[in-house]
Amino acid sequence: MGLIVQKFGGTSVRDRDRIFNVARIVANTRNAGNDVVVVVSAQGDTTDDLIQKAAEITSDPSEREMDMLLNSGEMISISLLAMALMEIGVPAVSLTGWQAGFQTDRAYSKARIKRLECERIESELARNRVVVVAGFQGLNKMEDLTTLGRGGSDTSAVAIAAALHADRCQIFTDVEGVYTADPRKLPNARKLEEITFDEMLELASLGAQVLNNRSVELAKKYNVELEVLSSLNPVPGTLVKEATKAMEGMLIKGVAKDEDVAVVTLVGVPDVPGTSFKVFSLLAQKKINVDIILQSTGRDGNKDLIFTVPRSEAENTRKLLDENVSRFGGSEVEIKTGVAKVSIVGAGMQSHFGVAAKMFEALSENQINIQMISTSEIKISVIIDQKDADRAVNAIHAAFIH
Amino acid sequence: MGLIVQKFGGTSVRDRDRIFNVARIVANTRNAGNDVVVVVSAQGDTTDDLIQKAAEITSDPSEREMDMLLNSGEMISISLLAMALMEIGVPAVSLTGWQAGFQTDRAYSKARIKRLECERIESELARNRVVVVAGFQGLNKMEDLTTLGRGGSDTSAVAIAAALHADRCQIFTDVEGVYTADPRKLPNARKLEEITFDEMLELASLGAQVLNNRSVELAKKYNVELEVLSSLNPVPGTLVKEATKAMEGMLIKGVAKDEDVAVVTLVGVPDVPGTSFKVFSLLAQKKINVDIILQSTGRDGNKDLIFTVPRSEAENTRKLLDENVSRFGGSEVEIKTGVAKVSIVGAGMQSHFGVAAKMFEALSENQINIQMISTSEIKISVIIDQKDADRAVNAIHAAFIH
Repeated sequence: MGLIVQKFGGTSVRDRDRIFNVARIVANTRNAGNDVVVVVSAQGDTTDDLIQKAAEITSDPSEREMDMLLNSGEMISISLLAMALMEIGVPAVSLTGWQAGFQTDRAYSKARIKRLECERIESELARNRVVVVAGFQGLNKMEDLTTLGRGGSDTSAVAIAAALHADRCQIFTDVEGVYTADPRKLPNARKLEEITFDEMLELASLGAQVLNNRSVELAKKYNVELEVLSSLNPVPGTLVKEATKAMEGMLIKGVAKDEDVAVVTLVGVPDVPGTSFKVFSLLAQKKINVDIILQSTGRDGNKDLIFTVPRSEAENTRKLLDENVSRFGGSEVEIKTGVAKVSIVGAGMQSHFGVAAKMFEALSENQINIQMISTSEIKISVIIDQKDADRAVNAIHAAFIH
Repeated sequence: MGLIVQKFGGTSVRDRDRIFNVARIVANTRNAGNDVVVVVSAQGDTTDDLIQKAAEITSDPSEREMDMLLNSGEMISISLLAMALMEIGVPAVSLTGWQAGFQTDRAYSKARIKRLECERIESELARNRVVVVAGFQGLNKMEDLTTLGRGGSDTSAVAIAAALHADRCQIFTDVEGVYTADPRKLPNARKLEEITFDEMLELASLGAQVLNNRSVELAKKYNVELEVLSSLNPVPGTLVKEATKAMEGMLIKGVAKDEDVAVVTLVGVPDVPGTSFKVFSLLAQKKINVDIILQSTGRDGNKDLIFTVPRSEAENTRKLLDENVSRFGGSEVEIKTGVAKVSIVGAGMQSHFGVAAKMFEALSENQINIQMISTSEIKISVIIDQKDADRAVNAIHAAFIH
């Protein structure tokens, strides 16, 4: 007898047949002797349809009203799934985010969970029901509806698993697990049996969007064992946990590509203490995420500050820096798009010599030029031309994963 | 400076253009110096689409889950209308039924309002906002979402108007007011300037479905002045109030037709005290509404009990009476469909001689046979063949309304 939290995304509940498919997975888990809490997203294109409806009204919708609008989406999927469960003989009850006890801050459209009061979920479990919870949703102190932002349903599921001390949190998707590279593009990508939270975090941030980063961070914080698996193909998925057993011959866990990146160069800033602080604290204030940072060697008392931002923030960054470039003492702002970040991730690799060299060799053999390099304990990233990105992933994958 | 509650049905907010049309009506009301609370239903076919989704899952959905599902509909329309109001410069905020303070009993799908706590609405009005409230919705003691059943949004609007002591409650529809007959069928039907609550109740129950009966009863109870008017054509509508001024030459307020009727005859029951009580208390227990009741003169110690029920209840009634006919001492149950009820309504007519005679004359001149007659203070109804119903309405209307 255990307690399992299962999360299903919008594709998994997009129509009647898919809903019954989910209901059967839940029923099987329950028949195996487990209590089950199910977290679901809005059906298929519901959220996009709702956003479209708002776009017809205004180009600048109130975020509060947008959250009110979007909250309707999961109410449809949770009630339909609860009906499907009852239809196949499984007692079930649906709960909205606020009914399930999700209390958030006021940040509409990207609210953070402040508290989760699970009394209602627990009392429904005690009545021997499967509890179907709307992911993505919360309620703020004003008693207004909020949403948790992109990937919010994963976060909802992990939060429930943490609060209820569930035995496992299963995240069902349309892929069978976490792969060493995107399996749609690289047929010999390998599915991982296990991966650590840290590795998963690096892979997620690199564009291998299987799991949302916030949910992995939350799982790591409360040590919730995650499993990523397919809702259509009933095979074991990938376990995400604190520490993993070594996989033979496997130095790295994945190769990932991220095209949402732009390189910013602030030319000729004074090579004096405090320059970087001024620049990056301004960007932080404006909530622009800076990733890789390089700094050229100072010459003539000046240096260049080079860093990457999400491509969607490139224009904001240019505007912000143009307004402030003279204050920083710089001479020019250059923005370069058309680049991509390719990275390898693996918790074991820092103890192996030659990992970076092997990566660079694979790129060199394919005449791919490296523009920037960044390394961390479990990751090596390079910035290259976007047009070379897929070739680079292939070459690196072939070099490391056999 | 007044306070106006305005209610718009699903057709009035069915798409972007209609939503902006509503927003402009609200803006005009506000610019005239009024505080405004707007109550809206779900858009166009949303509710039907949601019911269809549930029907694909199960033929017997849980009423609780059905209410969860349907509650999503108004969340879409209220948030879109609030956005449209802000887009044209009117500060606005949307509230779900529970946020607006609607507390109901547990009767899912047809919940009754137990309490309405208006603090949130009042505080939003105090902040100078138009408050857009989801009609039809409530929350029960379990903190589960409920719906108020058919016509529930009208009831929500009247309840708010009553609780806030609003100056008027305007019910916007796709007709310009209350007519002496259905204007789509009878082009010379006249729009009424005013009608009493009682007259409106009779007309509503007779199938002139402009206003839901529960909302009129509530308006009468709390003396909320209602106005029925068009959301597309900005002309004065019909006022529904306690007492009306006389309209010259107007003996009756309307002619209505109701085809949802079946005539039940319980043949040969003993002509002794208590028979009617037994029969009608049984029907009441089973929540079958009995309308007109006739009783034949007793002969040979037996009599026939004849009454009407909604046609949708005809089969239930037959089954129930068949099971009990011997207990009642009757010999047979006959059900007759293919009939219609045609009625005239008017609070003044009881003091005028000859109203009934004039009605019967109009029918007689058109060779329409009367099967049953029922009269009350403000209404005369006849049961006739369904095929004669439209001719009957025309003839009676022509006789009374010039």
